Amino acid sequence: MNHDADQALVLVEESSPTTRCRILETAERFFREIGYQKTTVADIAKTLRMSPANVYRFFDSKKSINEAVVERVTREVEALIAAIAAQPGLSASERIAEIVRTLHRDCLKRCQDNPRIHEMVEAAMSESWDVCRHHVDRISGVLVRVVTEGARTGEFVAEDPAMAGQCVHVAIVRYCHPVLVSQYPNAPAPPLEAMIGFLLRALGTRAPGAASPA
Amino acid sequence: MNHDADQALVLVEESSPTTRCRILETAERFFREIGYQKTTVADIAKTLRMSPANVYRFFDSKKSINEAVVERVTREVEALIAAIAAQPGLSASERIAEIVRTLHRDCLKRCQDNPRIHEMVEAAMSESWDVCRHHVDRISGVLVRVVTEGARTGEFVAEDPAMAGQCVHVAIVRYCHPVLVSQYPNAPAPPLEAMIGFLLRALGTRAPGAASPA
Repeated sequence: MNHDADQALVLVEESSPTTRCRILETAERFFREIGYQKTTVADIAKTLRMSPANVYRFFDSKKSINEAVVERVTREVEALIAAIAAQPGLSASERIAEIVRTLHRDCLKRCQDNPRIHEMVEAAMSESWDVCRHHVDRISGVLVRVVTEGARTGEFVAEDPAMAGQCVHVAIVRYCHPVLVSQYPNAPAPPLEAMIGFLLRALGTRAPGAASPA
Repeated sequence: MNHDADQALVLVEESSPTTRCRILETAERFFREIGYQKTTVADIAKTLRMSPANVYRFFDSKKSINEAVVERVTREVEALIAAIAAQPGLSASERIAEIVRTLHRDCLKRCQDNPRIHEMVEAAMSESWDVCRHHVDRISGVLVRVVTEGARTGEFVAEDPAMAGQCVHVAIVRYCHPVLVSQYPNAPAPPLEAMIGFLLRALGTRAPGAASPA
């Protein structure tokens, strides 16, 4: 290959949207394997046989790369939750229960797959607070919607459904916060199903049996 | 002072129970000012004009010093909580509400006074798990006692008071865990009073007005 063809290939590869994805995939693997703190943009570039300057054309800092990785992960779990909220044939109690189970299961799996996840999350929380805040708000938003719908149909008796939905979210932080789940897996906590029952009682579910379909 | 008198004074000082306290006070100040990680036993010894070997006669490691500091702090908050549980003239709802407020206020104050508290807590949680576990168990124990008493008198309708008390405790982790409170003070959370109302509903308080004395 002559020099011009070489250059053309580089240009095609770099302008391709897959280059962005490849940077994110490589970054995520580094964050998982050696941790966020120890990863450098130079490591990522070297693995991709790019110059650091080329990586910087897509992301202006390691912080921006982490934001994009965290954004991708949070969007995935938000899609799962939104699907449960919209799934036909479930009572509001069942939706709440299944959302809480899914948030916990997803967090647990990600922490097991990535023992250094807390470094990424801690970095995102201290350097990119808006990304985290919006994620928390979106999950709370889905819970609020389900509680509001349950109050409308009379399944719940929550006086302030918006507040109640946010209370459900904050009450499960022990089961769904990657820092707590990854760093303190042995901290005592009631079984998740007992916690779900407790939260449904707070929502004023009239009959516990009503949570199961006939 | 001759050499023998000097030696005698050193022996008296070292055997005194106050030497142990002075080591703990000095250690706590170092942990607060420069952080747990950067503090060395040599720093503590030097400040007290002792040799590190003398400090090691009282505590076999920095870890043991941190355990004693954490133990002292946790015993203080446990005493506050136990006093509320035993205070005459309060309903069970009022006791729960006041315990949650006190745990939150105490955590907030300690985090404000000591911005590096999470280092001590993280070290204790990873190196001295039993100290933390026993603290969590003792606080849960008090909450379980209050919920059980409330269920006995009919104020609460909790089917499993022991589990319900533990659920209350885990639900307030966002408001009372020094790592969350000190590291992520801006994480969204409902106002504490709204959360307390939510938890009391989960305990099946028959009439919300019953929480206030006539």
